[in-house]
Amino acid sequence: MSITNRVAPTSSGSTHADRFLEVRELTDTLTANLSAEDQTPQSMTDASPVKWHRAHVTWFFEEFILRTDPSYTVYDETYRYHFNSYYEAVGARHPRPDRGLVTRPGVADITHYREYVDSAMVDALERGALDDAALGLVELGCNHEQQHQELILMDLKHLFSTHAFAPVYVDREADETGEREPLTWRSVQGGITEVGAGSEASGPKSNGAGSGTGFAYDNEGPRHRVFLEDFEIAERAVTNAEWLAFIADDGYRRPELWLSDGWAHIRETGWEAPGYWQFTDGEWTTFTLSGRRRLVLDEPVVHVSFYEADAYARWAGARLPTEFEWEAAAVTGDVARGQLLDPTRCHPGRAGTTMIGDVWEWTASAYLPYPGFVPANGAVGEYNGKFMCDQHVLRGASAVTPRGHERATYRNFFPASARWAFAGLRLAR
Amino acid sequence: MSITNRVAPTSSGSTHADRFLEVRELTDTLTANLSAEDQTPQSMTDASPVKWHRAHVTWFFEEFILRTDPSYTVYDETYRYHFNSYYEAVGARHPRPDRGLVTRPGVADITHYREYVDSAMVDALERGALDDAALGLVELGCNHEQQHQELILMDLKHLFSTHAFAPVYVDREADETGEREPLTWRSVQGGITEVGAGSEASGPKSNGAGSGTGFAYDNEGPRHRVFLEDFEIAERAVTNAEWLAFIADDGYRRPELWLSDGWAHIRETGWEAPGYWQFTDGEWTTFTLSGRRRLVLDEPVVHVSFYEADAYARWAGARLPTEFEWEAAAVTGDVARGQLLDPTRCHPGRAGTTMIGDVWEWTASAYLPYPGFVPANGAVGEYNGKFMCDQHVLRGASAVTPRGHERATYRNFFPASARWAFAGLRLAR
Amino acid sequence: MSITNRVAPTSSGSTHADRFLEVRELTDTLTANLSAEDQTPQSMTDASPVKWHRAHVTWFFEEFILRTDPSYTVYDETYRYHFNSYYEAVGARHPRPDRGLVTRPGVADITHYREYVDSAMVDALERGALDDAALGLVELGCNHEQQHQELILMDLKHLFSTHAFAPVYVDREADETGEREPLTWRSVQGGITEVGAGSEASGPKSNGAGSGTGFAYDNEGPRHRVFLEDFEIAERAVTNAEWLAFIADDGYRRPELWLSDGWAHIRETGWEAPGYWQFTDGEWTTFTLSGRRRLVLDEPVVHVSFYEADAYARWAGARLPTEFEWEAAAVTGDVARGQLLDPTRCHPGRAGTTMIGDVWEWTASAYLPYPGFVPANGAVGEYNGKFMCDQHVLRGASAVTPRGHERATYRNFFPASARWAFAGLRLAR
Amino acid sequence: MSITNRVAPTSSGSTHADRFLEVRELTDTLTANLSAEDQTPQSMTDASPVKWHRAHVTWFFEEFILRTDPSYTVYDETYRYHFNSYYEAVGARHPRPDRGLVTRPGVADITHYREYVDSAMVDALERGALDDAALGLVELGCNHEQQHQELILMDLKHLFSTHAFAPVYVDREADETGEREPLTWRSVQGGITEVGAGSEASGPKSNGAGSGTGFAYDNEGPRHRVFLEDFEIAERAVTNAEWLAFIADDGYRRPELWLSDGWAHIRETGWEAPGYWQFTDGEWTTFTLSGRRRLVLDEPVVHVSFYEADAYARWAGARLPTEFEWEAAAVTGDVARGQLLDPTRCHPGRAGTTMIGDVWEWTASAYLPYPGFVPANGAVGEYNGKFMCDQHVLRGASAVTPRGHERATYRNFFPASARWAFAGLRLAR
Repeated sequence: MSITNRVAPTSSGSTHADRFLEVRELTDTLTANLSAEDQTPQSMTDASPVKWHRAHVTWFFEEFILRTDPSYTVYDETYRYHFNSYYEAVGARHPRPDRGLVTRPGVADITHYREYVDSAMVDALERGALDDAALGLVELGCNHEQQHQELILMDLKHLFSTHAFAPVYVDREADETGEREPLTWRSVQGGITEVGAGSEASGPKSNGAGSGTGFAYDNEGPRHRVFLEDFEIAERAVTNAEWLAFIADDGYRRPELWLSDGWAHIRETGWEAPGYWQFTDGEWTTFTLSGRRRLVLDEPVVHVSFYEADAYARWAGARLPTEFEWEAAAVTGDVARGQLLDPTRCHPGRAGTTMIGDVWEWTASAYLPYPGFVPANGAVGEYNGKFMCDQHVLRGASAVTPRGHERATYRNFFPASARWAFAGLRLAR
Repeated sequence: MSITNRVAPTSSGSTHADRFLEVRELTDTLTANLSAEDQTPQSMTDASPVKWHRAHVTWFFEEFILRTDPSYTVYDETYRYHFNSYYEAVGARHPRPDRGLVTRPGVADITHYREYVDSAMVDALERGALDDAALGLVELGCNHEQQHQELILMDLKHLFSTHAFAPVYVDREADETGEREPLTWRSVQGGITEVGAGSEASGPKSNGAGSGTGFAYDNEGPRHRVFLEDFEIAERAVTNAEWLAFIADDGYRRPELWLSDGWAHIRETGWEAPGYWQFTDGEWTTFTLSGRRRLVLDEPVVHVSFYEADAYARWAGARLPTEFEWEAAAVTGDVARGQLLDPTRCHPGRAGTTMIGDVWEWTASAYLPYPGFVPANGAVGEYNGKFMCDQHVLRGASAVTPRGHERATYRNFFPASARWAFAGLRLAR
Repeated sequence: MSITNRVAPTSSGSTHADRFLEVRELTDTLTANLSAEDQTPQSMTDASPVKWHRAHVTWFFEEFILRTDPSYTVYDETYRYHFNSYYEAVGARHPRPDRGLVTRPGVADITHYREYVDSAMVDALERGALDDAALGLVELGCNHEQQHQELILMDLKHLFSTHAFAPVYVDREADETGEREPLTWRSVQGGITEVGAGSEASGPKSNGAGSGTGFAYDNEGPRHRVFLEDFEIAERAVTNAEWLAFIADDGYRRPELWLSDGWAHIRETGWEAPGYWQFTDGEWTTFTLSGRRRLVLDEPVVHVSFYEADAYARWAGARLPTEFEWEAAAVTGDVARGQLLDPTRCHPGRAGTTMIGDVWEWTASAYLPYPGFVPANGAVGEYNGKFMCDQHVLRGASAVTPRGHERATYRNFFPASARWAFAGLRLAR
Repeated sequence: MSITNRVAPTSSGSTHADRFLEVRELTDTLTANLSAEDQTPQSMTDASPVKWHRAHVTWFFEEFILRTDPSYTVYDETYRYHFNSYYEAVGARHPRPDRGLVTRPGVADITHYREYVDSAMVDALERGALDDAALGLVELGCNHEQQHQELILMDLKHLFSTHAFAPVYVDREADETGEREPLTWRSVQGGITEVGAGSEASGPKSNGAGSGTGFAYDNEGPRHRVFLEDFEIAERAVTNAEWLAFIADDGYRRPELWLSDGWAHIRETGWEAPGYWQFTDGEWTTFTLSGRRRLVLDEPVVHVSFYEADAYARWAGARLPTEFEWEAAAVTGDVARGQLLDPTRCHPGRAGTTMIGDVWEWTASAYLPYPGFVPANGAVGEYNGKFMCDQHVLRGASAVTPRGHERATYRNFFPASARWAFAGLRLAR
């Protein structure tokens, strides 16, 4: 698959520019109320400073699109060093664990950098200066920035959670807890099933565009056949109320429920509840982007690791779905979109029947290449393929995933111990 | 799957006893020339002392078979604490990283323990005192001990390799390097394929015995259908000569060849060649159980990690096979058995066409449960299932795998960074 | 010794206020050109963010002086948690390694906090509301803030040194290298000598004021007698030129020159030159608060650890002086003050004969209590005494020590491996 | 000071040989009942395997005495690599943390090595082949071996303490607890005092022998003058009963009692009692070389770190003596020798008035060179001097110090956190 195959053609340069600016503006909206201090630190190696995210996504457009135009003047040659994330092909980078020490350029410089690149990009797009390959990279860059919009909120939440007095990113009213829905199951028939993005796997091979559904990352293809047994999948995600039952039943203290790695990890970390939960004065609370809040029972549980999701499923007498079961269920079901990113909320609401848009859902699948997978050409080929080792696939999308970035074939991935993502789970059996 | 389903019935108690004693004696043969000092240390957390292995496999029979007989007198109640490996259901254990500090019981005590348990086991087997379930556990225990025979040699090799003066475990003559065979490929047709041990997946479900092929671990089942694309697989494993070409072509210095984790790992460790290799005085040598030897060019490369195997395959313009491709190729091919454990050699010879018995072969597959996998009942159910996370499947068998322990459905597994196993690779495309 | 004993009485409240404001303003001057981003990160556990320093020194006045007045309104109760450094008696604190993650309060809040406390302090001082004990604490707080002025510059230098492109804190012209002065020695006669701050050790014991020389920390007393042998001390500090000779003579590669701990440390860290030095394109440079600069040969060497200072002295056929020899030499010599803090320079100049004010000088002495040492009463008693373990005494003062904070009895201390202080050495024999 | 200065001349070669053999035999006696397994592991980096100690002390004689005779045939050239402890001048060594992995040579080989070297040494001594310098090294080697006799017992105790079932090295009856002696104090007058081994400091300088008291290590000299204030010192060491009072008074939970490093260390380690103590079933026990035993109340407390000793002294309203106070008290007092090494006991008995021979006593002094200290010539000069950094002096001797190895000027040293030595404390004020 090449990137350009997946780009739905748009009618005009100005449409491309609109799309570009829409994505760029959301980043600005999300970070508008953060101080220079808020945007500077890195709370753990896996996270990055907000100002780094804002510059890095900008650098992506400059590096892969604008630089190819000999008449373009690079904004600052040192930015390549500071804002390259992991592209070995692009050259040396600042050590990842030290991103929080780079005080210069500051937030004002980065805002100016964004404006400079936006202007050059819009100019190029409106002039129609970009060929299809370049337009494919623009779309990739927009998706890349959307992905970082979610990372900004995940990383900021982690940073703020280390603060002793629970800072508030967005103020909102307390949620009401509703009636807990009983868990129901849906049967899905197995057999040979097509999964993944791109051209039909069973038909004649083609280099043409996919099934018309627009952009996808290279790791979502090729579309191919898998054999599935019949299975059942839960109609909704596991809730906080259900997780409390798991805790009450000594879920975190019974080794037989856990993978060996998971058991070792919770012994070492002392985990006894999902990330950001605290039990104080007889009450469970959780840290949110609106500060510390009382736990809402019928919300989907979020900020659990793969280890915890797997142990919960075993405790519940069920299992996690594979990513292919999940996709088959998402495609065949009548599945509403959920609570995708609303900048005034940034937190999942009550668990409904949606499979996409409340919480990312851990699957039983390791993150591996699909048969025939070929990374995209050039440096952007380092985007997904080189991480296919000891990562676990999550499907769906979360309450901080930007609208338009979600789709049924999307393959998100994290290590088994990660829990700063907005990740929950759905049972299968 | 229950263990007993997989046991081929034998005609009499004495046959069971013969089988049991044959396995037990090989352990004694392998360790006969090791001093008490050789048997005591633990050279890394992943490895265990030889005397621990000898006692642990014995404890397995005592714990899961003999203890169920109320008239049996346990040899020493403290041994359960010392020689339980990881069975949470059995109770507290000595911390794994400290196995090398347990000097008491010593080697002579453990030899006596082995004799005591052997005597009780043979008595029970010859009396016909064990029911089918117990006989299934005996067979499991024999396979368990065979697995530890290989571990003894792996761990001993690692221990001896830390010695400055290359101790010799078994003396043997130098190998001759022969002509290097050009690499040829075999085509395998895809489609729906049955893989795994046990009853036919496509036929009616049954609780009966498997396809008559004898013992298998629970992780090898259930037998089930997968969909494979057509593929080609190399007729032999990658050789030392080929690996030298990879090194000469800067294979260890080109990030584009490596998974992100792999690149980080070799930067951190400084790896520039397979495990045990050394370049001294203009010559490559490798440490073997016969001391340090000149590298033999047409032997299969061994002691590479998954990271290295994956990078090599990318460099070679190929890839690793999935475990299902591997199994389909092994079952359909005309594949001779290789150089399984010969106590006078303990090292692979020249690379031939065998898929089983020279080196374990890394596959592209993560170690995950097969559809419908259920761990064995009771504590022995902790044997395989709880390790199904961030491990990678190896197929085949090696030059230190005991004869009779190899089969086409066998799923060995190690973390991506491990290279003290006798592991190499075979290409697919 | 109690703090108040050491405070030279001043004639009026307004004089106290002047003194207080002068110290406070220097902090503001030093940090005026630093952005919010510059003031936020913590580049290592030993260092602190600039904004933390600015708040912490302010909190000291609020905590120990203003809070004792029941009518005083605490600025923000959460600041005690954030800006207490290590006073166990005051209560829980933010974990030291995470000071760089506290984005709120921000720089503007802290500036406001400083103004609030300044106003309350000046009011109290001008009203004459403080008794002698409280005035003693004010003087202690002023000295404390001066100490942090030096720490701000040390920590900022370390932070900026991690930046790939050498930020400039203060711009200044390049230094000229002059003629290297040959090293000369001064003889000092031994015998029973009085050292330390406070009342005469040899006279009758008294609780009265010291020898009239103004403020001293508790760790500088009691004044007491020691027996010294005759010795010689170098007339100037070791220079960069001399250090280059040490490097050229394989000083960093000869184990016989090093303490065992020092040798292990340089093997582990790979140190081959003082902190901040780099050898690039055939030239030695060093990082300064004015960016990366060519090494100036006749400046005193700075940013060496105790390990390195000790090894150098052994290489030079000499040794480090004890802190008592150093003090005896400083008191008896005709010793000019050096290059104490000049905000437009912040770097030592050419090595002269001064013992105080160019670089801190490592001594051979461990940091231990003087005979009869009693920590100050109350929480401020945690200031010095509890660090008397595995630290090494430095004497003198450096080019970033505020004027007025230096004296011959001052005992600075750091661990043997520390080298972010402006520390060099002087030989004895 | 040179080593030979300190050797008391003996009348004949055979007397030298007797002395040598007496020392050597004690090592054999102490290790006679340890199995090969017991002698192989290394329980922590600071400790060494018993068989390593036995070989290392033997290598010392071979390396520094026998090798200088060209007609001597080295036993095995690889032993220099394995059994050199830290003498950089002698060449490469096996990495210290991996001493427990060296299984070859084994215990039988090392026994043979000892016999071989003994034979060559006795031959040389009886032939009178050694000059005074060499005889000085023999005496140094005998003292070195005595020091390792104590280390063997310390290290073995630590190794056995990691065992779950408390192995017994030497069986003995339970101790009776007696009446606790009330603590009394002795006054010592200050002034200028001579301390250290060797010639009189106040008299004319001489290169001749010391004050006739026999062997001393280089670190005990030169004898020199110090100035002491008057002080009082406790008549006996702190007992287990007193330590229980410290625990009961929350001694381990009150930060104001602790040095900053000590407080951090006990928070990190969770220490709540001395080393080897356990509180089980309502009773305190301690691990001894005779297995786990009920705590005996009037024994001196042992296996405390410097951190704990210092905190206890502060709690008791007292302090630790400096090493010079200690020595002045030991020299002037009427001080019986205590319970020096008895191979049938290896544990201190009831606390008496002895200053030497029950437990090593932490002092307030850092381990630093005496004025004029010069290490011994050659490789043996690496013996003591290079450790003079961040170590703390202990004085006296313990119940596992060999008889004849104790003296009033002896300077033992350990890091502040070490507690596997037989170390307690005595108060001063």
